[in-house]
Amino acid sequence: MSNTFGRVLCVTTFGESHGPAIGCVIDGFPPGLEIGADEIHAHLMRRATGQSRWTSQRREAEDVQILSGTFEGRTTGTPIALLIHNTDARSKDYSRIAAQFRPGHADYTYHHKYGIRDYRGGGRSSARETAMRVAAAALARKYLKQQLGVEITGWLAQLGEEVCDEHFDAAVIDTNPFFCPDAGRVPVLEEYMKRLWKSGDSVGALVKARATAVPVGLGAPVYAKLDGDLAAAMMSINAVKGVEIGAGFGSVAQKGTEHRDEISPTGFESNHAGGVLGGISTGQPLELAVAFKPTSSLRLPGRTVDAAGEPVEIVTTGRHDPCVGIRAIPIVESMLALTIMDHYLLHRAQCGDVPPQQPRIPG
Amino acid sequence: MSNTFGRVLCVTTFGESHGPAIGCVIDGFPPGLEIGADEIHAHLMRRATGQSRWTSQRREAEDVQILSGTFEGRTTGTPIALLIHNTDARSKDYSRIAAQFRPGHADYTYHHKYGIRDYRGGGRSSARETAMRVAAAALARKYLKQQLGVEITGWLAQLGEEVCDEHFDAAVIDTNPFFCPDAGRVPVLEEYMKRLWKSGDSVGALVKARATAVPVGLGAPVYAKLDGDLAAAMMSINAVKGVEIGAGFGSVAQKGTEHRDEISPTGFESNHAGGVLGGISTGQPLELAVAFKPTSSLRLPGRTVDAAGEPVEIVTTGRHDPCVGIRAIPIVESMLALTIMDHYLLHRAQCGDVPPQQPRIPG
Amino acid sequence: MSNTFGRVLCVTTFGESHGPAIGCVIDGFPPGLEIGADEIHAHLMRRATGQSRWTSQRREAEDVQILSGTFEGRTTGTPIALLIHNTDARSKDYSRIAAQFRPGHADYTYHHKYGIRDYRGGGRSSARETAMRVAAAALARKYLKQQLGVEITGWLAQLGEEVCDEHFDAAVIDTNPFFCPDAGRVPVLEEYMKRLWKSGDSVGALVKARATAVPVGLGAPVYAKLDGDLAAAMMSINAVKGVEIGAGFGSVAQKGTEHRDEISPTGFESNHAGGVLGGISTGQPLELAVAFKPTSSLRLPGRTVDAAGEPVEIVTTGRHDPCVGIRAIPIVESMLALTIMDHYLLHRAQCGDVPPQQPRIPG
Amino acid sequence: MSNTFGRVLCVTTFGESHGPAIGCVIDGFPPGLEIGADEIHAHLMRRATGQSRWTSQRREAEDVQILSGTFEGRTTGTPIALLIHNTDARSKDYSRIAAQFRPGHADYTYHHKYGIRDYRGGGRSSARETAMRVAAAALARKYLKQQLGVEITGWLAQLGEEVCDEHFDAAVIDTNPFFCPDAGRVPVLEEYMKRLWKSGDSVGALVKARATAVPVGLGAPVYAKLDGDLAAAMMSINAVKGVEIGAGFGSVAQKGTEHRDEISPTGFESNHAGGVLGGISTGQPLELAVAFKPTSSLRLPGRTVDAAGEPVEIVTTGRHDPCVGIRAIPIVESMLALTIMDHYLLHRAQCGDVPPQQPRIPG
Repeated sequence: MSNTFGRVLCVTTFGESHGPAIGCVIDGFPPGLEIGADEIHAHLMRRATGQSRWTSQRREAEDVQILSGTFEGRTTGTPIALLIHNTDARSKDYSRIAAQFRPGHADYTYHHKYGIRDYRGGGRSSARETAMRVAAAALARKYLKQQLGVEITGWLAQLGEEVCDEHFDAAVIDTNPFFCPDAGRVPVLEEYMKRLWKSGDSVGALVKARATAVPVGLGAPVYAKLDGDLAAAMMSINAVKGVEIGAGFGSVAQKGTEHRDEISPTGFESNHAGGVLGGISTGQPLELAVAFKPTSSLRLPGRTVDAAGEPVEIVTTGRHDPCVGIRAIPIVESMLALTIMDHYLLHRAQCGDVPPQQPRIPG
Repeated sequence: MSNTFGRVLCVTTFGESHGPAIGCVIDGFPPGLEIGADEIHAHLMRRATGQSRWTSQRREAEDVQILSGTFEGRTTGTPIALLIHNTDARSKDYSRIAAQFRPGHADYTYHHKYGIRDYRGGGRSSARETAMRVAAAALARKYLKQQLGVEITGWLAQLGEEVCDEHFDAAVIDTNPFFCPDAGRVPVLEEYMKRLWKSGDSVGALVKARATAVPVGLGAPVYAKLDGDLAAAMMSINAVKGVEIGAGFGSVAQKGTEHRDEISPTGFESNHAGGVLGGISTGQPLELAVAFKPTSSLRLPGRTVDAAGEPVEIVTTGRHDPCVGIRAIPIVESMLALTIMDHYLLHRAQCGDVPPQQPRIPG
Repeated sequence: MSNTFGRVLCVTTFGESHGPAIGCVIDGFPPGLEIGADEIHAHLMRRATGQSRWTSQRREAEDVQILSGTFEGRTTGTPIALLIHNTDARSKDYSRIAAQFRPGHADYTYHHKYGIRDYRGGGRSSARETAMRVAAAALARKYLKQQLGVEITGWLAQLGEEVCDEHFDAAVIDTNPFFCPDAGRVPVLEEYMKRLWKSGDSVGALVKARATAVPVGLGAPVYAKLDGDLAAAMMSINAVKGVEIGAGFGSVAQKGTEHRDEISPTGFESNHAGGVLGGISTGQPLELAVAFKPTSSLRLPGRTVDAAGEPVEIVTTGRHDPCVGIRAIPIVESMLALTIMDHYLLHRAQCGDVPPQQPRIPG
Repeated sequence: MSNTFGRVLCVTTFGESHGPAIGCVIDGFPPGLEIGADEIHAHLMRRATGQSRWTSQRREAEDVQILSGTFEGRTTGTPIALLIHNTDARSKDYSRIAAQFRPGHADYTYHHKYGIRDYRGGGRSSARETAMRVAAAALARKYLKQQLGVEITGWLAQLGEEVCDEHFDAAVIDTNPFFCPDAGRVPVLEEYMKRLWKSGDSVGALVKARATAVPVGLGAPVYAKLDGDLAAAMMSINAVKGVEIGAGFGSVAQKGTEHRDEISPTGFESNHAGGVLGGISTGQPLELAVAFKPTSSLRLPGRTVDAAGEPVEIVTTGRHDPCVGIRAIPIVESMLALTIMDHYLLHRAQCGDVPPQQPRIPG
């Protein structure tokens, strides 16, 4: 169960960073959606490492194969298996650290949990796994768009101390390697990354995402709340340390009169709730923020111990992002899409389909 | 499935705020634990509304009955049902708002999801449900303490703008109605609440919690990560808008050299990770923070619409906390306990029991 | 998870035979169904022990309470908790066998699995638990009838060696204490039971059931096949040792030309399949048969051992049915109803609702 | 969820008969088991079609690849993905029946459920899927053998009207293409099959299986009973129409004094229970029987309709077994192994490990 995401739309992923392949099985997907490997590939390339000098230099072709679940280009309702062979895994990079626990990595915990671990490139704990989330979500996004008009957008809100989204232009996001929505900030980010790269250090990131046209009524109180499932979905992404919905931690210092979103005959007057009340979508945009910790793989030496308990100094020489949060943006979007779709299907189970016409607020 | 929490230790809750009773069924609990209704009751009273003038004036006896699953004072391995009859539900308080959608509440979303709702006291969306989480967790906490030595502590870290835990003394937490760990701050908080009460407004809160003696190895990557399940657990609590593990959102502006917790032969040198790496517990204390939004039920009028779409002004006259976050502290602790125990059992399934002696770092 | 039945319509039961109460929580039920405790009670009385001299003399009022999940007489979409207090539990009957393992009972296995057991009346392993299946199914049956026209009928097909359904008249079933569909066989069965009672022995039973108007398309291959879930549902009933769908074991000696149900423009020509092909309903009646073993509680002495391993002779003096299969008929019907409804909801999740008009064969 | 088997040991299969590949993901498997593709392959060859002239002439190399979850020849605790490319799929064989519903097949139901189907070789409903059950079970069988000494044996008990196991010699089973345990019956079966083949017709089969050294205590009442899960496991196999545990349908005509297995200080005196009481294993051998219907694909013409509802005569000319039950024997064994292992892990979760030394009856 632990490598499966979703309640009725179940995505099971498998594969290690330097194993022969990674893949996933999508179970419970509705029949009839037109989908091709090329469409999935386009999403994978958006996530792909190696797309800019600011992200990991590993270059995977990401040639995804659809092994099952489609017929003549359409989903059939049977499990859809997707597979990508790993082609650019350089295991020799990692041999030196086989017996050492890299600080900030899962080496120590995998070692103690399982008593054995595939240390090459982080094995299962590598962000390589997230490619399959993006692949699976490619189908969910297309389905949600066709069925409900849902649009999902993620962006870089902060890079280290640098705020990136004071000015927001959605059209800018995909025009720069930072997924930054403010064209004016891009040169600043480039300069920032250059200095960071030179220093050998890394930095965290704040990623935000939004989904529009989510119908009112998705979410199943109380332990399958839409926001609860979103929190789990986001926290399951590598390097995530925090999740907010709507006003998030800002709501701590808010007054009730400020936070509560008043309603008028034409709709909600604000969206501090982030599109969820009582665990159920309100019909407003779903809005969330996700905190990514800085990359722990650094060429700056760190102190740790080896499996025998002896102190050692560790230096990571592989290819690594100075900021993992940047390339995580399509992953955040993907988990948002998968969660919404799972809840859409779950809602259909209990309550039937959502009305073709959204309720005019507040009907 | 949506009213059940947990993967192998499954807690299903039921009941509405003003229905005849609330209850839960705990399935998968190990046999042999000595437990009595009085022990559960003690935990319930700690959470109970009406314990101070700062929290809701509803006064429930919280007389919990154990309906099944124990024999001669010990758990038997069969489902444990707990029941509390609602005795102080005053439905007349709510009759006026039956046809109106209170801003910031689940009225609007329940109405549109289900087409019908029990509007009395918020029905299922009321925080009344959380009493059963505390009741179920009473068993989990006792088991974890006996089996592993786990201790769980929650506290108020911030009340509106007022930071409460700059000085931390665990012994102080249960000596004041705010669960504040700093005795010196209690008078300030009292003054703050007095002003708030007078103003008719409400405020948010930041709650923190910690679990010690959690063994290394709990958590099941990648979609049942310990931190992922904790995030879902916390976000499922009423009024929660954000969850952090360890450094949380603070990690955005951290450098990698600062964030990564180095390891020495005697253990980790810091705990920015909050006790989880790669979704698996490190053996360090689990540390998290949870943001609560301000209460939406206010006697200050707010604008909304009724079910016919007509604009109305709404005033809530029932008994309500000016800060729901305060009494939520035992609930945060409870969800922490249930999540740890669920993962302890899940770990036993796949890997067998944890070693009786924790690995000396880094073994 | 182990006391919960269903995938999206989840029924969790709790309670021991001689504990204070038994109950269930129904989660995922659609909102809007009109239901009252009286309707549930009617189903419970049909199952109730003590209804005739041929079944257990325990007499429970079966006063079922609806504790949650309805409002003004309708389901709200939140969990529906049902509760029945045990009133006629005579624990003294069982005190002598507390330390002995009754042959054919779960005493031995509960003892070794859990190390502790509530021996009073069989505790959790008692058929008392099945009352809650009937209660939960009362809602499912009403919903299925209203939504799809589904009708469910169970009957006694064989009592020991006595075949009961060579002539089948559905109207006869509820007119005799055997649920026998052949009025002419009732006196024979009475005579048979009289002799059995006198002998002190017990006997097995064959129960059959049928559901009509099940739409084509329910069932989710390959591990949630409709027939697979039905088999689990039936085998979960106390004393069941075998399950057949359609031709069942009779298909072993059939030829392919005989078994395969040919199709004509007006429909299937036969129903050896029992209404399921490839794990999916065909639109024909669902037909199944269930084998019940003879009651193991006998006043005829049997050899066993006590917890210390010493040989003892055991005689059961409590109130027991000489044939548990008879009163199990409403339970078989109930599990059939719950399984169909669960799959109807699951089908809605993936494929949307079934067409309001069933496909005219073969559409 | 519907293509996943198991509660804590979760096996998800994917793939269509004539798609590029079939595969599975095994999640929750304990770390540390030594396993190689060759061992899995050996099990696959035992099941493989084309092994004798009595089973389907499709010849697959069954070259299974381990794509993930092992490192240096041992399982790591992460998901184990297995893949087999389909190499001998001849789609032209099926083109004629693309628009027709073969009687006794899932064509009709898949068509109506999903509105689209991969008709080539039965698509997902083909027995090709079961290869992955055998592959996954190869690991489970090795683990159960090492950990508990469990041995699993299946055999052909009846072929059409021909009983095969009146004399039982386990050593004979793997020496003939029928998995028949009675060497003296093999020539009879050969003659029988020859006549059947000539006639163009097919026949059903009765398969029995047994597991020894299953510890007492496995099974989780009441809806995850060991026998309940076994029933679902067996019924999920293609062409299965009935499942019995122990005395099964024979218990209908048994008396209680005959059926109940008495206990002496040295153990149970009989095993009518088939190794399960109250849903929990007794420590005796698990014993079950499974009824397979005759193959529906026949070269003898049958009447059906096409998708337009027009009557047509259908003749299946592909490669098909005249008795699918024969090659299903390793599949029955495999589902038995997977179910036992799943319950062994589930038992560990709730109750800790089983004692290394089985309780001497009745301790």
